[in-house]
Amino acid sequence: MAEDETPVRFGIMGCAEIARKMSRAIHLSPNSTLVAISSRSIEKAKQFSTKNRLSENVKIYGSYEELLDDPFVDAVYMPLPTTLHLKWAVMAAQKHKHLLLEKPTALDVKVFDEMLEACESNGVQFMDASMWYHHPRTAIMKELLSNSELFGRVKAIHSSSSYCGTQQFLENDIRVKPDLDSLGALGDTGWYCIGAILWSMNQKLPTTVTALPNTQRNSAGVILSCSASLHWQEDGTIATFYSSIISHETMDLAVCGSNGTLHVKDFIIPYEESKATFSFTSGAKFVDLHIGWNVKPREVKVDSRLPQEATMIQEFSGLVKGIKDGRLEPDMKWARTSRCTQLVLDAVKNSIDNDCKAVQM
Amino acid sequence: MAEDETPVRFGIMGCAEIARKMSRAIHLSPNSTLVAISSRSIEKAKQFSTKNRLSENVKIYGSYEELLDDPFVDAVYMPLPTTLHLKWAVMAAQKHKHLLLEKPTALDVKVFDEMLEACESNGVQFMDASMWYHHPRTAIMKELLSNSELFGRVKAIHSSSSYCGTQQFLENDIRVKPDLDSLGALGDTGWYCIGAILWSMNQKLPTTVTALPNTQRNSAGVILSCSASLHWQEDGTIATFYSSIISHETMDLAVCGSNGTLHVKDFIIPYEESKATFSFTSGAKFVDLHIGWNVKPREVKVDSRLPQEATMIQEFSGLVKGIKDGRLEPDMKWARTSRCTQLVLDAVKNSIDNDCKAVQM
Repeated sequence: MAEDETPVRFGIMGCAEIARKMSRAIHLSPNSTLVAISSRSIEKAKQFSTKNRLSENVKIYGSYEELLDDPFVDAVYMPLPTTLHLKWAVMAAQKHKHLLLEKPTALDVKVFDEMLEACESNGVQFMDASMWYHHPRTAIMKELLSNSELFGRVKAIHSSSSYCGTQQFLENDIRVKPDLDSLGALGDTGWYCIGAILWSMNQKLPTTVTALPNTQRNSAGVILSCSASLHWQEDGTIATFYSSIISHETMDLAVCGSNGTLHVKDFIIPYEESKATFSFTSGAKFVDLHIGWNVKPREVKVDSRLPQEATMIQEFSGLVKGIKDGRLEPDMKWARTSRCTQLVLDAVKNSIDNDCKAVQM
Repeated sequence: MAEDETPVRFGIMGCAEIARKMSRAIHLSPNSTLVAISSRSIEKAKQFSTKNRLSENVKIYGSYEELLDDPFVDAVYMPLPTTLHLKWAVMAAQKHKHLLLEKPTALDVKVFDEMLEACESNGVQFMDASMWYHHPRTAIMKELLSNSELFGRVKAIHSSSSYCGTQQFLENDIRVKPDLDSLGALGDTGWYCIGAILWSMNQKLPTTVTALPNTQRNSAGVILSCSASLHWQEDGTIATFYSSIISHETMDLAVCGSNGTLHVKDFIIPYEESKATFSFTSGAKFVDLHIGWNVKPREVKVDSRLPQEATMIQEFSGLVKGIKDGRLEPDMKWARTSRCTQLVLDAVKNSIDNDCKAVQM
């Protein structure tokens, strides 16, 4: 039926660098279309349109309100600085725009819950823009981790997410400004580590979260690197992570189970768009005399038809379509996932601010 | 000259499973020969000789003293339970036997220093039997980590060393008996993690060591799994490790620097004897639009002519030969390396025993 093929109409609020990637993803996603962009400055929005060769049909707004008032916009992608999320996410929900929100979702879970309440009471879909959940590799990794024979129970997790900000970045980016993204590296790269750890644990919250003593801050007090440990008392599981914007690029996730091990070195953004790999070992033992292993890790290759950000848009738009057509209620799974990450992020922040004191969850 | 080609004559004290591997290594090492084995039971020693098809020339002793009194033994390999190290290591040194001691070296650094004092005052070479230091891969990895351009400064290290003990092992092995190897998993697999972390830091001791709250013990109180973090205040470097004998097999070392990253998944015992690999990435950045990386990790392959344990024996015997010939003094580098590991191990143990309190070094 014709109506089923109508794509979900996106507006982008904020012309950040990441919005370039997302406007391409909306274009690539088969059930989505970009209809409007907005910036606080009409000039910046026009430049964005030109630079990204947007169609003439994409409307250009010089304020976020105008975009939110456009009745032809179904959903917004919002890559604004974290400090601005509350105001604009709540307004978007109130104007019945479905919300794809950049991470970190909020400065703390109290703010997150205000945004979520606005989404729930207005019946709009919420999702944060953590793309890697939507890569087909992620589903295959999860299948293996869920295999009680091949992998067993999760015993230990380590994740590292880092990159090396340029001088220019470390002086000017919103992620190092206390009034814009005061969570710094923790909110940026730490979000992914925490998300990956919780993903490995099926969103089960840890019992205790403890920052490690390596927090580094810039002169304005914004975190440039930090680490933490998470502990699940009942399971005896431990997780550690390293988050930094002043180190070499890493995107590591290593999960050790009772019967198997998973390693991936590019879990957030795969080395290449068209395929991704991870390594999995199961039932490894020493050979006689302990001079080698009985098995080597299996390199699992996963092809992807679409980039992960386009798959994310496609999944999000599928949910939005269902709501628009009256077939579905908003799917709360994504909000729950974001909320778990936010809760642990808050605990890490709390522990950092309290001299690495253990925080009970 | 004929004398230069005389191999160093080894005695093995204790017929543990690991001694099988080492008797093969002594055989493979070009400058070493096995001349005697001993066990508390002559029957066990005879069985060991038969099982490992030792030459008829290898003398079999039913007590350690007899082996130490044999004037044709230059050096001993000692895979005894840790609790017994002090007595026999000191006696070996007093009888002027060079000492290749299984890890963990001692129950604590006080005991270690007693053994070391005996070695020093008797002019014998000391080395602990951590084999991986002697693999040619290790030297190549160190070369890359020392390259200030390709790798830069060490920012974060993670290591994991684990295996899954069988029911039989977890009930009977010396490593789960408080009167034999009371350090349990920490002394066994944790020794390697700590060693690898310190190796990455050129044996610089951390400022603070803090156990993480996941220690698991058996009914006799012996550690089966544990984790800890190490922090170098001055450098801002953080390291974490996971050590377990009740998890799937891992031998991970990941070192993140300012300009590069090293990953190895079999650092303690390579998957295969004849070659080993590791992966190294340098100067990684996102490509435009952040849809991939500009470089993929380079897989570095290293061939090895001899198994790493034979290389270790060869290095040890080279030092022993030098001392015997009056050319060299005992090389204290290996004792210093062991001592650093022992110091950090003690700190981890101390932190575990004190409810994860941070221990200042």
